[in-house]
Amino acid sequence: MCTRLCNHPTHAFEATQIKTDAESLQHWGRDWSRQFEPNPSAVVFPKTTEQVQTVVQVCNDLGLVITPSGGRTGLSAGAVAANGEVVVSLDKMNQVLNFYPADRLVEVQAGMVTKALQDYAEAQGLYYPVDFASSGSSQIGGNIGTNAGGIKVIRYGMTRNWVAGLTVVTGNGDILRLNNGMVKNATGYDLRQLFIGAEGTLGLITEAQIRLERPPRDLTVMVLGVDEFAHIMQILATFQRALDLTAFEFFDHVAVQKLLATGHVQRPFDTDARFYALIEFEAPYEPIMDTAMQLFEECVANGWVIDGVMSQSIAQAQELWKLREYISETISVFTPYKNDISVLISHVPAFIADIEAIVKANYPDFEICWFGHIGDGNLHLNILKPEHLSKEAFFAKCQTVNDKVFSTVQKYGGSISAEHGVGMTKKPYLHYTRTPTELTYLRAIKHVFDNNNIMNRGKIFD
Amino acid sequence: MCTRLCNHPTHAFEATQIKTDAESLQHWGRDWSRQFEPNPSAVVFPKTTEQVQTVVQVCNDLGLVITPSGGRTGLSAGAVAANGEVVVSLDKMNQVLNFYPADRLVEVQAGMVTKALQDYAEAQGLYYPVDFASSGSSQIGGNIGTNAGGIKVIRYGMTRNWVAGLTVVTGNGDILRLNNGMVKNATGYDLRQLFIGAEGTLGLITEAQIRLERPPRDLTVMVLGVDEFAHIMQILATFQRALDLTAFEFFDHVAVQKLLATGHVQRPFDTDARFYALIEFEAPYEPIMDTAMQLFEECVANGWVIDGVMSQSIAQAQELWKLREYISETISVFTPYKNDISVLISHVPAFIADIEAIVKANYPDFEICWFGHIGDGNLHLNILKPEHLSKEAFFAKCQTVNDKVFSTVQKYGGSISAEHGVGMTKKPYLHYTRTPTELTYLRAIKHVFDNNNIMNRGKIFD
Repeated sequence: MCTRLCNHPTHAFEATQIKTDAESLQHWGRDWSRQFEPNPSAVVFPKTTEQVQTVVQVCNDLGLVITPSGGRTGLSAGAVAANGEVVVSLDKMNQVLNFYPADRLVEVQAGMVTKALQDYAEAQGLYYPVDFASSGSSQIGGNIGTNAGGIKVIRYGMTRNWVAGLTVVTGNGDILRLNNGMVKNATGYDLRQLFIGAEGTLGLITEAQIRLERPPRDLTVMVLGVDEFAHIMQILATFQRALDLTAFEFFDHVAVQKLLATGHVQRPFDTDARFYALIEFEAPYEPIMDTAMQLFEECVANGWVIDGVMSQSIAQAQELWKLREYISETISVFTPYKNDISVLISHVPAFIADIEAIVKANYPDFEICWFGHIGDGNLHLNILKPEHLSKEAFFAKCQTVNDKVFSTVQKYGGSISAEHGVGMTKKPYLHYTRTPTELTYLRAIKHVFDNNNIMNRGKIFD
Repeated sequence: MCTRLCNHPTHAFEATQIKTDAESLQHWGRDWSRQFEPNPSAVVFPKTTEQVQTVVQVCNDLGLVITPSGGRTGLSAGAVAANGEVVVSLDKMNQVLNFYPADRLVEVQAGMVTKALQDYAEAQGLYYPVDFASSGSSQIGGNIGTNAGGIKVIRYGMTRNWVAGLTVVTGNGDILRLNNGMVKNATGYDLRQLFIGAEGTLGLITEAQIRLERPPRDLTVMVLGVDEFAHIMQILATFQRALDLTAFEFFDHVAVQKLLATGHVQRPFDTDARFYALIEFEAPYEPIMDTAMQLFEECVANGWVIDGVMSQSIAQAQELWKLREYISETISVFTPYKNDISVLISHVPAFIADIEAIVKANYPDFEICWFGHIGDGNLHLNILKPEHLSKEAFFAKCQTVNDKVFSTVQKYGGSISAEHGVGMTKKPYLHYTRTPTELTYLRAIKHVFDNNNIMNRGKIFD
């Protein structure tokens, strides 16, 4: 393969664009998941869409499998090359190609890091609103491949909403330039949408046209203490009726307990609550703050809120956000069994009650920590390892939890992976969300774009 | 076919659910386009998804072609049955099935009329924001099939944004329930997206889960007079920087001239301008009106705006909207040659100049009337018939314009159909927007969902 790439008549690779040393294979062969050992055969670093096409053509000719590789921050092993694959890293394709101010549209190479795009947008007086913990390392191509979500979805939607155009190289080696950044284009199937969330199984995303927004103004944060989960739903409805929320997050007393124990965050208020809601909204006009106070008082009067606090400055808002943002890191020392699941908001209270009953009945020594993006039905379920159990014993037990949790997800018509994709780790459970008939269509579509099944083989489905 | 449907063991049709009389065939066999004569073989009116499945299975068995039929308000002959097809009308599937207040989500049958959905939303204190001239007759299924746009896209996006789930019957006769209304669901290819905008060529949409929004508050309208088209772009950028616009429309002096001649609309201000921008935004707080006035003054000071008016009441706002909304009807007496095209906003000024130069050079006696949703790059190009030309001679000449117009669209990477779909009328021009390679993929995807090519055969592509 290396010879063919380096001697290509029009798109020759330099020697530095191909790595086969053990350290590189380890580094580029894995993502943030740790379930599978990386074992690629080579890592290539194309610089242009045409070079990506060349790699795909050569791999098709030689029967080699490709693992597309972005920032490798995925949690489902979607970017792990465990079976001798050729890793195609987009690291050298990280430039801004064009900016159209009137369209608030930026054209970037897919290897651009999310944070770099956010910074670029800011420098233009604009805003890229998809944000999450790994934005400092994740790449736009990877975000698109998993349709990344994050903490502002209630207002801004998923990555899908911001992708106005894509350049892709299909598994068959065709370059497609899809939708050209347009808002309106009713000319047949929108192939762009298929590549969003396809986890690199249909082809490689090499360039993207991304829409930008005006920056948010005077973000204000409230944290409310709540004693019954059902009341969180009432609070959401009340606030959504009168304010445009930019976030509506929740977390439970277990999370707060662990957070306070670290000493890195301050107690939001003296009262202890079983659940907490974090609400964020723009408040550039004084009457909005008045409205927020009225809604808060309404919630207190109804007995839904037992205590609360509202930020009076950006610093205070940031301080309150720590209550939500530091949870993942804080509970990581408890070796949590994590699941990223989604159901309709309407089903969340019953769903949570079901899961708690299941865990209590089957694993009475397990502690559950809930948090998540409740404003869009996305829950992070974390079961914490009891001290007396070994990691191995704990994870073995957790595997038996999986089917119970996912059966409950299925009962409510939910998703076994809200925003982390399927990759390899969720593959055994895909049938809880997608029917056998759907899977038949998924496989047929994969075949259309990737005749020889060379693109990220073994990810999403077999 | 009738016998098989009426004698079906589990999903039998009543006799009233099948029509074959000449009048019905005419009525349900056509849409708002008038280029092709309707000639279906039967019209069936299923009442459930399972009955739709039965029709698809029977048509597959008998080698019959299906034309899905909603409100038949399409302008591209996407719902015309001209070749003996079986029309499957969704008219009897128009009910609300479920409403989830916490999710602001409504589940409807696909035959529900757009206006009925808007009214239902309003009754829940919510809002369905996709709105356009045919909302009184068009059905949700048809809106989804063409990814309908309309006048509020700059703020609310296309129909696609509001579709949280779909139930479809594929051309192969499979029922798929896609995405279950979730906001977040990263479990493989999002098939729902393929059916949005597929114009019924992959299958029939029978049910949809539609997201609703809070209603807009205190909508305020400005109409500005502008003498150079480039200034409209400056005005858009200026207003977008500081306000969240719900509409940014434009129209030219030809449109206003014709409107005023009807006597049905009032002159917005005394000054004559070459172009007009209509800007709409929510102004629930006093400071927003101040901001709008400041932006207006900034635009005047920069020489971009020569005159303007801002609504002080809902009645005034509605009056100003007439300037935009009455254009289509007003110019219809001039037998306009219409095109619904889209380019990046950044390219609009050059694109308009190119088209005007082409028309001036080749058809010096043609008058052009421009209007459109400039805030999303969607232009309606209307060439008015000179009085001395017969309709036939005019349309013949217009056919020769097509290739010049669409070549210009292609030059700017635009779309030959922004929001009206392809159907049959735009099919000969599809290659100006989609490459031969893309079309190969489109055909392959069609084959996956519709092995026997029975779904809306001859629409979008052959």
